[in-house]
Amino acid sequence: VVVSELSADAVDLGQYRHYMQKEIFEQPAALADTLEMTGLGGRIAPEVLGAEAREVLGGIRRILILACGTSSHAGLVARYWLEEIAGIPTSVEIASEYRYRESVADPDQLVVAISQSGETADTLAALRHAKAQGMTRTLALCNVPESAIVRECALRFITRAGPEIGVASTKAFTTQLAGLFLLTLVVAAQRGRLGEQEESRYLRELRHLPAAVADALKLEPAIADWARRFADKRHAIFLGRGRHFPIALEGALKLKEISYIHAEAYAAGELKHGPLALVDRDMPVIAVAPNDSLLEKLKSNLQEVRARGGELYVFADADSRIEESDGVHILHLPEHYGVLSPVLHVVPLQLLSYHVALIKGTDVDKPRNLAKSVTVE
Amino acid sequence: VVVSELSADAVDLGQYRHYMQKEIFEQPAALADTLEMTGLGGRIAPEVLGAEAREVLGGIRRILILACGTSSHAGLVARYWLEEIAGIPTSVEIASEYRYRESVADPDQLVVAISQSGETADTLAALRHAKAQGMTRTLALCNVPESAIVRECALRFITRAGPEIGVASTKAFTTQLAGLFLLTLVVAAQRGRLGEQEESRYLRELRHLPAAVADALKLEPAIADWARRFADKRHAIFLGRGRHFPIALEGALKLKEISYIHAEAYAAGELKHGPLALVDRDMPVIAVAPNDSLLEKLKSNLQEVRARGGELYVFADADSRIEESDGVHILHLPEHYGVLSPVLHVVPLQLLSYHVALIKGTDVDKPRNLAKSVTVE
Repeated sequence: VVVSELSADAVDLGQYRHYMQKEIFEQPAALADTLEMTGLGGRIAPEVLGAEAREVLGGIRRILILACGTSSHAGLVARYWLEEIAGIPTSVEIASEYRYRESVADPDQLVVAISQSGETADTLAALRHAKAQGMTRTLALCNVPESAIVRECALRFITRAGPEIGVASTKAFTTQLAGLFLLTLVVAAQRGRLGEQEESRYLRELRHLPAAVADALKLEPAIADWARRFADKRHAIFLGRGRHFPIALEGALKLKEISYIHAEAYAAGELKHGPLALVDRDMPVIAVAPNDSLLEKLKSNLQEVRARGGELYVFADADSRIEESDGVHILHLPEHYGVLSPVLHVVPLQLLSYHVALIKGTDVDKPRNLAKSVTVE
Repeated sequence: VVVSELSADAVDLGQYRHYMQKEIFEQPAALADTLEMTGLGGRIAPEVLGAEAREVLGGIRRILILACGTSSHAGLVARYWLEEIAGIPTSVEIASEYRYRESVADPDQLVVAISQSGETADTLAALRHAKAQGMTRTLALCNVPESAIVRECALRFITRAGPEIGVASTKAFTTQLAGLFLLTLVVAAQRGRLGEQEESRYLRELRHLPAAVADALKLEPAIADWARRFADKRHAIFLGRGRHFPIALEGALKLKEISYIHAEAYAAGELKHGPLALVDRDMPVIAVAPNDSLLEKLKSNLQEVRARGGELYVFADADSRIEESDGVHILHLPEHYGVLSPVLHVVPLQLLSYHVALIKGTDVDKPRNLAKSVTVE
């Protein structure tokens, strides 16, 4: 494990106690900066991805996303967007797995490599492996323009998150999501799947994200209250469904990284195929953005474990008709945000892990055993 | 949660203390029975999958596997086989996710539904969802011939595991793997990817599986020793890579289901992207079948946590040149089994979870909160 050379002293903490907290609160500005290049128009030009975008993207039939850790969660969210909005089959592979396995190459596949630093060793190796198999249509999604992954890709989208110093990625993740949503719109338009009106609407929603994230950040005091209930736990299960399943994965990873609580995420429907056996008073269940019908199913799944003290914490949408009940706690997000909802829903989970870590007194910005950029295998 | 109507009294326990133990030890016979229909020849007829196999499989370009829980782990192993040996792109989807999301349909895709009971509600619904989208090339892989999923598929492979009564699936899993390997051979032969000699060799290895699994079962005393070290743990991390990553997932699920230890699996390369922060003396790391170079990487990843008492337990191949060292414990499997190695490597993990549960005194065959067949959503 090699520690990044980026010095923490290079960036002023200002009013914040930790870089992670600062970076969580910088997300509205980071998103605005990242989206700035999309201009003010109602249509998006493929050239935001590079001068040769039309040529490289022309005739692609599938998308393969390669990434590690938090970046792979961004890829998993994008998969839902790309299949639903652009109608293009998409797969996401852990870079360290892809680079070593015998897969089936497809030259009409766009390969997207996601890495905050642009130097993640496994992601770079996976990208090279894909290119060696003849997949030359490549796109880098990175936060560092002069990085190796950017240099080796035909196309690039550079997030403008600014330096991220906290080891637990926050603003890099949400700006990656913004970039991936732009990619979705470009591919959808190119495939004739996006009317002009629809495209303007999506772009409007995208440009409203900084304000919406700023509103979500106002939940901090309520989340700090919840954090007090979690600080003595050793375990947690995070549940999500559909485009919020990767957000559950990301919420669990954040809690793991900085609070050392063993949090694990499941697609909500899998709970009854095993993990439900773990749930008791020591294992809270955190549900991300369930719609009302999912919550009803969850409640019935949890009925049996209520007797053992199992508790459910729900991050609900603004318009969810969900009421608190015995053992079921609810926080409503300020807005219901449609397909872009994952970008909003990750914010309270970042805050939750931060406040739990604060209470536990861990080294928030430099959690034990981890490095910021994983430039070794 | 609905309890299966299959009565536990219907099957005699014989010399065993629990159905799970009995079913683990029945695996050589279950595999032999399942493979019996492949005959004695050096080639395998597509008709083992049904009379219309040639027609249904003709011209397929991809495979989509739908399943829940343990069955989805069988699907994940098969993905490695199908891409590597048959050269056919394969994806595996959690049934409860697939049924609710907007994906891209492909009529030239074979849809494989895996379910021990053949009645798993989410898998059945996902199968119907795929068919409604025009994907009519379907194959059921079930243990119950008269089940709903079998009735609704064009092709079928029935495992002959016999009744499985323990809630934690064991012999159903390994026989599913045998069925999926047969599917791999059929598809590979049909696509001209399998020479006659190669096919005989694979069939020979497949038919030797019952004997190889019987040998692996002889590790029980050594594993019971390891179980004593685990019984007081609350957590564990399982690691695997490639075709053994799904075996790590399955090992973690087994331990979770019956011992209530919070075990979580990761692709080995992901450890340093977050989960490594969790590792200390209370969080053993279990590695499945690493080759020697993976172990070297793991050892270096774990160097930092050795000071905190982190311990590594390795299920190694027969020919791995791996030696025990401070904090690194090794068990060698009796044979190195090439591509079929996942079938062997899951056996010691089943035994480990069984023996940990024995020590903890849980209700092995009916773990809390879980039902054998999940026939509700």
